[in-house]
Amino acid sequence: MVIVMKTGASERNRDDIVENLKERGYGVHISVGAEKTIIGVIGVSPDAKAELSDQFEALPFVERCVSISNPYKVVDKNFRPEGTKINVRGVEIGGDLAVVMAGPCTVETEAQIMESAQIVKKAGAHILRGGAYKPSTSPYSFHGHGVDGLKMLAQAREATGMPIVTEVMDVRDVQVVCEYADILQIGTRNAQNYNLLREVGQARTPVMLKRGMSSRIEEWLQAAEYIASQGNYQIMLCERGIRTFETYTRNTFDINAIPALKELTHLPVIADPSHGTGKASLVPAVTLGAFAAGCDGAIIEVHPNPAKALKDGAQSLTPEAFESLMEQLKRLTAVTGRRL
Amino acid sequence: MVIVMKTGASERNRDDIVENLKERGYGVHISVGAEKTIIGVIGVSPDAKAELSDQFEALPFVERCVSISNPYKVVDKNFRPEGTKINVRGVEIGGDLAVVMAGPCTVETEAQIMESAQIVKKAGAHILRGGAYKPSTSPYSFHGHGVDGLKMLAQAREATGMPIVTEVMDVRDVQVVCEYADILQIGTRNAQNYNLLREVGQARTPVMLKRGMSSRIEEWLQAAEYIASQGNYQIMLCERGIRTFETYTRNTFDINAIPALKELTHLPVIADPSHGTGKASLVPAVTLGAFAAGCDGAIIEVHPNPAKALKDGAQSLTPEAFESLMEQLKRLTAVTGRRL
Amino acid sequence: MVIVMKTGASERNRDDIVENLKERGYGVHISVGAEKTIIGVIGVSPDAKAELSDQFEALPFVERCVSISNPYKVVDKNFRPEGTKINVRGVEIGGDLAVVMAGPCTVETEAQIMESAQIVKKAGAHILRGGAYKPSTSPYSFHGHGVDGLKMLAQAREATGMPIVTEVMDVRDVQVVCEYADILQIGTRNAQNYNLLREVGQARTPVMLKRGMSSRIEEWLQAAEYIASQGNYQIMLCERGIRTFETYTRNTFDINAIPALKELTHLPVIADPSHGTGKASLVPAVTLGAFAAGCDGAIIEVHPNPAKALKDGAQSLTPEAFESLMEQLKRLTAVTGRRL
Amino acid sequence: MVIVMKTGASERNRDDIVENLKERGYGVHISVGAEKTIIGVIGVSPDAKAELSDQFEALPFVERCVSISNPYKVVDKNFRPEGTKINVRGVEIGGDLAVVMAGPCTVETEAQIMESAQIVKKAGAHILRGGAYKPSTSPYSFHGHGVDGLKMLAQAREATGMPIVTEVMDVRDVQVVCEYADILQIGTRNAQNYNLLREVGQARTPVMLKRGMSSRIEEWLQAAEYIASQGNYQIMLCERGIRTFETYTRNTFDINAIPALKELTHLPVIADPSHGTGKASLVPAVTLGAFAAGCDGAIIEVHPNPAKALKDGAQSLTPEAFESLMEQLKRLTAVTGRRL
Repeated sequence: MVIVMKTGASERNRDDIVENLKERGYGVHISVGAEKTIIGVIGVSPDAKAELSDQFEALPFVERCVSISNPYKVVDKNFRPEGTKINVRGVEIGGDLAVVMAGPCTVETEAQIMESAQIVKKAGAHILRGGAYKPSTSPYSFHGHGVDGLKMLAQAREATGMPIVTEVMDVRDVQVVCEYADILQIGTRNAQNYNLLREVGQARTPVMLKRGMSSRIEEWLQAAEYIASQGNYQIMLCERGIRTFETYTRNTFDINAIPALKELTHLPVIADPSHGTGKASLVPAVTLGAFAAGCDGAIIEVHPNPAKALKDGAQSLTPEAFESLMEQLKRLTAVTGRRL
Repeated sequence: MVIVMKTGASERNRDDIVENLKERGYGVHISVGAEKTIIGVIGVSPDAKAELSDQFEALPFVERCVSISNPYKVVDKNFRPEGTKINVRGVEIGGDLAVVMAGPCTVETEAQIMESAQIVKKAGAHILRGGAYKPSTSPYSFHGHGVDGLKMLAQAREATGMPIVTEVMDVRDVQVVCEYADILQIGTRNAQNYNLLREVGQARTPVMLKRGMSSRIEEWLQAAEYIASQGNYQIMLCERGIRTFETYTRNTFDINAIPALKELTHLPVIADPSHGTGKASLVPAVTLGAFAAGCDGAIIEVHPNPAKALKDGAQSLTPEAFESLMEQLKRLTAVTGRRL
Repeated sequence: MVIVMKTGASERNRDDIVENLKERGYGVHISVGAEKTIIGVIGVSPDAKAELSDQFEALPFVERCVSISNPYKVVDKNFRPEGTKINVRGVEIGGDLAVVMAGPCTVETEAQIMESAQIVKKAGAHILRGGAYKPSTSPYSFHGHGVDGLKMLAQAREATGMPIVTEVMDVRDVQVVCEYADILQIGTRNAQNYNLLREVGQARTPVMLKRGMSSRIEEWLQAAEYIASQGNYQIMLCERGIRTFETYTRNTFDINAIPALKELTHLPVIADPSHGTGKASLVPAVTLGAFAAGCDGAIIEVHPNPAKALKDGAQSLTPEAFESLMEQLKRLTAVTGRRL
Repeated sequence: MVIVMKTGASERNRDDIVENLKERGYGVHISVGAEKTIIGVIGVSPDAKAELSDQFEALPFVERCVSISNPYKVVDKNFRPEGTKINVRGVEIGGDLAVVMAGPCTVETEAQIMESAQIVKKAGAHILRGGAYKPSTSPYSFHGHGVDGLKMLAQAREATGMPIVTEVMDVRDVQVVCEYADILQIGTRNAQNYNLLREVGQARTPVMLKRGMSSRIEEWLQAAEYIASQGNYQIMLCERGIRTFETYTRNTFDINAIPALKELTHLPVIADPSHGTGKASLVPAVTLGAFAAGCDGAIIEVHPNPAKALKDGAQSLTPEAFESLMEQLKRLTAVTGRRL
């Protein structure tokens, strides 16, 4: 950490800080510039950094504190430079496979989820998605079938052999969702619901952590660290678009985040072009772009009949569009060193 | 709702939609323009709008759906044009009083919260703030004293007579926080944690709902509607700054939101200039600005010694700075028709 | 255009508007909803829309005006559905070729630009980039060699046969830049400098229009319409990242914009991953992603020795990194139906 | 400036940098942390900083460079701690007076600007605003009367005695606008049009520099430094709202910027609540808020009949609304130590 003193701060001010730091056991380097003095602080752990920074910034003669090292440890690339591989019922995420998770936004009926599963399986998807618990902006919208939805997903898994990924929104539901799901999804609105993160951190089911719609990459990694700090290291990060000023699309898919995460962390990276664009017509191009940029997998909304979907119809692919995308993806992965 | 057809959509396409809408019981008006046809849909309730819009946008010959009426009912201004007043142990929020809530970010020790309470009480604050459960970006930071913190707050209330406002982060804690708190605070990271919103909606303690750091005003009001839809109408909305590209300040305090909310809803509006700026030096100016713009109250972080605060020291006022702000506020409210 | 009346507006209010519209020669459709009345206005040209919308929104009983058709004509996809192809000294942009423009941020010396040209030519680039006029955030930075820089670019063109693209920042320089450049670049800071746009619209040299760092796609297309409205239809659009809250990268490359523009306009789309990320290490992944998503070309900063570059060293590729990227691109385009 | 080395950088790497810095004449302090080494660089002038930072960030073993001192000099608070006062035909900006500039968005006709001038004068405004050159998002909108508009403004000044402020958009118009205007306005779309900034920097007419719609405060001050670097120190900064994700308002008025600028610079600060909100109904509250937060003046759009305005009708106050706002402002300034 570096402490930048205000222009005009006295030597006395500086010495007070140095003494304070030494009392706390930190090493100190002083660098007196033409205008400003800066103090390098050695030995601050990620745990202590935020607090220390806040306290020193409260001093009237301190301008600001600059963080030098990353505020996370377990999810840091250096912790496991070879990368994390997650095995979900035989499907390996983070390895050679270009993983495709597909299915409807919401589990609507037994027939709908079964038909969806068969459609995406036939087209080559590896994992089935579907929501049993749904966050909706309006309190009056449909919120999912809950446990019944989980059971329908399990039936679809039995019929097709595909592992299932589904969202958990409530700390009280973590246990029951773990009984059915192969991957727990944390949605964007709960991306900083720290109690929920800790709860899934205590589970031993893999977790797919969506990016908060206004989370910086660093905050997202800190959210992942919450999960990892409880002992669950099977985490994948899902870029699902961020909130910007653009209104033509629902969100702005941050493709930069893919190679950035590959530099910063050992966790697998999944792309969600459905939420990342909000428009079915844009999904194929962005999916291909995400894989070309190096993501480990994608999660894509597909519905047997989008115009009758209970949620997110506008961003769901038709079976035909999904099939066509999988064809293109096959050609693409052939030259990027992945298998589909 | 208005459905905009794509340029080139056929009459057949249009008729299909019209028939579909009539089957669902909606009224329909068609308007054929030079380039595009639009279909006005009459009788769509806020409950049904999101779903309907999603389904029609999934049709290949529909360009988009435009929402005309507001997607909330109970919190709409028209529902209670005279405005909502909330009585908290004799302190009325939403009336003549310019309400000031003040105190430390976090309840640290019995002595600290007691001293803080006495400082802010003496300077003229009406309500005591302090966190017993704290959301922290880092999993390794201090997360609050929990129930012990609530007890310390209750002692400070007993000693000073000030009602207390404190955050609840977990559905499992709602009941215990209700036992101690006079106002339940929902933090920005849980602003779209819908299960938590529903849970506090079932309580009968007033709720202060912070704006999500990337929530549009409309989404914020829908979040309030979640609470209201469960029967708890004692809601105040707290503007705490939104996330933007500016990095000099921690957040951008959205002063526009104050008069905007006054137009749209009957709920009282509280300003949080401490989080809205993230810098103690900017807090007084923004507090005064918020009251001049018409907010009903403000919540301000004050710490006996910010440089020793466990959290948010950089944005906490010293006792002297707070006292001076209260003096200025007294002069201001004298000319804005409020009491302090 | 649709005019939404406020809840509570009277029939008299409505009739006033209808009469006003009819006087202006527009067709009118009224649609009376449960809460609100909306008025569809037929026959408003893109020219008149902004003004009309502003005037009606000024009426106290009007809630808002909703635009239905696009506010641009000549750059609209429907104007030329087959797409625009631009021929620059034999290099066709907008056709089969995956066009690569490469070179240093700034023309520094004769030797530097000549060496750069040879490096990128050898690796397979088609067009040489290099700045003679440079916008710098600081008034004290280097601002380019001006006409001398243009001459150095022309020498490099002569030596390598590559056409050149270079920025013009000032209406007074358009003529001289046209004498040397094959493509005029409009930078992000001048993306809404309408007088400059009109001036290059009167030239007959192709223009590459960068997106404003906070321009919505619609505004960007309106900026292109400025150029086209003066008779210069040889325009390409360059996505160079938008400004968001993320700080790890310099900008957020908006990959969604690529397929979105392909839907909306007939103009070719170029990607600028150098500015779109601001970090050389992220450039290859984002370039590949952009081509997989369907862009017609990319413009990439390459410097013989980035650590000695006068500007943008942090985002410039080394010759080796560029060569390696071109290899990957060759494999990619082989499966996307483009030639490199 | 501080250079942060990557984890794993060697001593050799470090020594190379140190040597390089010493050759350039800078002082150096090395601070070896547990994970990372940082190098403090002493003596970097604001002029050299951007270039140096870019070059070092291009080195593969450098993580990033952190700027410590401000990248501007002449506009820095320390340069003139007592603040800048600008005298415009007897109206002092930056002193005791709460300055109000008011008038229509656009000069439409002789009669309209004359009537507007009389209305705002009577209500107590000090300076007349009105656009002769207008930037419009659409190329087909009205772009102002140009020189004829300037002449109409001059007539209104003669009749009322009010100084006039008007926008200049083109380097070629600076001279003629200086002949008529008392204050040159630089609009948000030209806030980083550096050639225009330099041109008005060579004039001796005061300049009101609007904030770019996505300019950080630091970039805005650097834009002001462009003007000042040419010798024109009579600059005022105008906060006019920034672009965010919120869609209810046209822009987000950044009230934080007012006290922030007061800390950072000696230049007067003007608020533009008309563009800052885009809605006439929100303008009074935000104007009052801005003055309570300490701005030196405000610029407000007022039109004799907003529903007939050629531009910006939706955000223009009626004469009655403006008069009522001036009454409230009188009461407010009475307690904030300003005169109106």
